[in-house]
Amino acid sequence: MPEVHRFPIRVYYEDTDAGGIVYHANYLKFAERARTEMMRESGSDHRGLMGAFDVVFTVSRCDAEFLRPALLDDLLSVETRVLEVGGAVIHLDQQIRRAGELLARLRLRIACVNRQGRPQRLPEPVRAALAHFRISEELV
Amino acid sequence: MPEVHRFPIRVYYEDTDAGGIVYHANYLKFAERARTEMMRESGSDHRGLMGAFDVVFTVSRCDAEFLRPALLDDLLSVETRVLEVGGAVIHLDQQIRRAGELLARLRLRIACVNRQGRPQRLPEPVRAALAHFRISEELV
Amino acid sequence: MPEVHRFPIRVYYEDTDAGGIVYHANYLKFAERARTEMMRESGSDHRGLMGAFDVVFTVSRCDAEFLRPALLDDLLSVETRVLEVGGAVIHLDQQIRRAGELLARLRLRIACVNRQGRPQRLPEPVRAALAHFRISEELV
Amino acid sequence: MPEVHRFPIRVYYEDTDAGGIVYHANYLKFAERARTEMMRESGSDHRGLMGAFDVVFTVSRCDAEFLRPALLDDLLSVETRVLEVGGAVIHLDQQIRRAGELLARLRLRIACVNRQGRPQRLPEPVRAALAHFRISEELV
Repeated sequence: MPEVHRFPIRVYYEDTDAGGIVYHANYLKFAERARTEMMRESGSDHRGLMGAFDVVFTVSRCDAEFLRPALLDDLLSVETRVLEVGGAVIHLDQQIRRAGELLARLRLRIACVNRQGRPQRLPEPVRAALAHFRISEELV
Repeated sequence: MPEVHRFPIRVYYEDTDAGGIVYHANYLKFAERARTEMMRESGSDHRGLMGAFDVVFTVSRCDAEFLRPALLDDLLSVETRVLEVGGAVIHLDQQIRRAGELLARLRLRIACVNRQGRPQRLPEPVRAALAHFRISEELV
Repeated sequence: MPEVHRFPIRVYYEDTDAGGIVYHANYLKFAERARTEMMRESGSDHRGLMGAFDVVFTVSRCDAEFLRPALLDDLLSVETRVLEVGGAVIHLDQQIRRAGELLARLRLRIACVNRQGRPQRLPEPVRAALAHFRISEELV
Repeated sequence: MPEVHRFPIRVYYEDTDAGGIVYHANYLKFAERARTEMMRESGSDHRGLMGAFDVVFTVSRCDAEFLRPALLDDLLSVETRVLEVGGAVIHLDQQIRRAGELLARLRLRIACVNRQGRPQRLPEPVRAALAHFRISEELV
């Protein structure tokens, strides 16, 4: 049974700009925190994966829609869904919501690479972890 | 005769991450600096536009490809091209290069809104400024 | 009975730099998150204080020692102690620790000001909240 | 004849917060950019020093006063003065000004360390470069 991963994010002064709203590039940071926690809950963290498999994850593509602004003190939730898992890439859908309302939506292509930047097959523990959050694309 | 706007960016420690490369979300900051300077060179800055026309610009869509990593101390150039100018939106192509080599490419949809977030017609000085950097889409 | 406020912080890629460690300026962000949560737990958040009392808090002085580096994936704890509460200023000691080990220490002077930047008397709810975390200076 | 190093900084949206002013921790970033450029003008950059001498610079202490706020679109100048150069440490005074007016002032202790974080003697090219910007403490 596929699942959505949810991670809470509080908006602090550092996240906002002089427009009084969250600076657009910071939604990408929020999404990266949520991806990191999704992996950590499955038993993998960055330093562990680097040590055991000599791999890191790098964002190779990000299509982002910014629909409504988040404000200082807001409590947000990042919803992460796994769309597709290839040999060395992961496709994700990440939605940033406030009380259910969709504020921003990201579609990402994450590549698994070694220290020299060459594509590497996804380690099995990562593959197993992602299967838990994978959904059929029709549902997105 | 359409033109490309070029803006230099130096990579500092603050821009990099533990992978030894520029953190992906920071390319969006670099692009925003370049857009701001393109407008400033045409006589418009954020505070001036807010004061005279009660408008701000907000990124409503950003499709980003991260192709090659930038490193600490690198000198980058952000190339900005205006793809299309609508009543209240601007479509831009922004390429981040190092010595000519393409590192990242962004396609953005920028909306002109008032303080309440409602779409506003682009002020004439902005429209005139953008015409200078507008290209036919075939060239991109 | 005075208390120490503790707030957990996880280190993400965004917090690190090419030296492989947390970028020094980011400890100030961690400390600000902890101060915000200390206030929130006492019933005050930034937007609420602005709405009810027309005040914001601004850092007027920060003396920081960076003793040992924090790393990607580290789980940190920010310990906040109230040193002194004046009419319009708060003096705080904030220590960032990893498994008890002291990594960074900040002494801050926070000013309570209105939108025009003029000093304002600390609202009573804030004063009451801070009393809970106040310690005699001899203990620091 | 001792000199002050001056480096211009433009304030962008990314630097500001919902208070409408530059976020306090970002002055530390501005100062680090200026230090990096002071060294670069003297022939040393981070990657070069790491490659040739296996050293990096790390901030071990920073005492900061935030006096007046900088705003979006402001053009600032970071003035850097070398106070003292020890065997493995540098003491600097950095002032951030807008049209001459002092906005923030930092006193920093910078340590020269190797990849393992152990103190290293300052490389001679760095020592020579700093001598150019060194002032007697009486003048500060």
